[in-house]
Amino acid sequence: MVKVDSKLVIALDVFDVDFAVDFARKIGREIFAIKINWPLVMVRGSSIISELSRYSRSICDLKIADIPNTNRLIAEKVAENGAWGVISHAFVGSDSLKAVVQAAGDVRVFSVVAMSHPGSADLISSSLENLVKISIEANVYGLIAPGNDLEMLRKVKKMAPGMKILSPGIGAQGGSASHAIANGSDYIIVGRAVYDDPDPLMKAREFNRELSNIYH
Amino acid sequence: MVKVDSKLVIALDVFDVDFAVDFARKIGREIFAIKINWPLVMVRGSSIISELSRYSRSICDLKIADIPNTNRLIAEKVAENGAWGVISHAFVGSDSLKAVVQAAGDVRVFSVVAMSHPGSADLISSSLENLVKISIEANVYGLIAPGNDLEMLRKVKKMAPGMKILSPGIGAQGGSASHAIANGSDYIIVGRAVYDDPDPLMKAREFNRELSNIYH
Repeated sequence: MVKVDSKLVIALDVFDVDFAVDFARKIGREIFAIKINWPLVMVRGSSIISELSRYSRSICDLKIADIPNTNRLIAEKVAENGAWGVISHAFVGSDSLKAVVQAAGDVRVFSVVAMSHPGSADLISSSLENLVKISIEANVYGLIAPGNDLEMLRKVKKMAPGMKILSPGIGAQGGSASHAIANGSDYIIVGRAVYDDPDPLMKAREFNRELSNIYH
Repeated sequence: MVKVDSKLVIALDVFDVDFAVDFARKIGREIFAIKINWPLVMVRGSSIISELSRYSRSICDLKIADIPNTNRLIAEKVAENGAWGVISHAFVGSDSLKAVVQAAGDVRVFSVVAMSHPGSADLISSSLENLVKISIEANVYGLIAPGNDLEMLRKVKKMAPGMKILSPGIGAQGGSASHAIANGSDYIIVGRAVYDDPDPLMKAREFNRELSNIYH
């Protein structure tokens, strides 16, 4: 079987566990990873992470943002369930982010340095340099930066050229997948544009074709 | 039965569901609320909120910190499970915090404007005024401010005199319960100091006596 070289991460921001597992089973091989958010964990508990990880890499988008000890407990549970990656905030500070990296072990930590919604202009955007600095010091694997703000994306890429960038903000939030990849993203996050499509498998393959020849 | 007028919120930062339920059953009447964090939800799912709410008010310390749509999904699930309160970050911006307040309905929203760990000096502390402003605009019920930083606590109280203040940082993190109450806290959060005590019920009553005659 040909290994698909996908840049596509599918966000399953849903409460429906059966739908999520069925979706992962059908489409897992065609994508880079499935992104699991708190809603699914709230319904099923963290075992949903290992269930979905049977079919695809999983990235737990938990936006971890607590004191070091609580961050550690959350990250340990993520690691225990076999996730491929986990998303943590950097704004709560260096010690909190380092606690995630340490407890995550082999699980790759992505830290949020910029976000895709309007409210990120209130505080997150003006903290960009500090957030990147805290992330580099904590030795994270990658960064979260918005695919719907290409100027911000290029800035982040320039500040941390060796780090993988995972980008939300595509589709419903206005960003274009190919523009994001061309401007620094390594992986793009898409949700409803794929899982609400009448033929999600075909839609994912369409994205893969669109993105396969774009390099930043 | 005499209604206990407690200022004590017990943090159950544990993975052990049976222990948590048993603890709540035994001590629920003696305290103001139980604070539920992600670890318990990761093990049991969000139904742990309704289980523990049978014995005590519950405050879900989820440090919600995502885009408005995801914040809404998380807050809806909290409300559906009958929580008394929920804790959200303000740092991610006005629209995200407003989404929590709106989706939470009758559930009281506390927003984090200051934290109790050293890393909060990296970015959170210098954003205090903005965080309080965002919280007031979003019409939250109360604020989270550290019981182990009395100067910060007084500042927060002065900036938002009408709002309830819930304070972590007591005990293991160095703060004193009575000093926190005297300097602006309405409720203090204690964890291991109570649930690791050989007689948690007596320990909780001790805290209640200590705090009953202190007014800020």
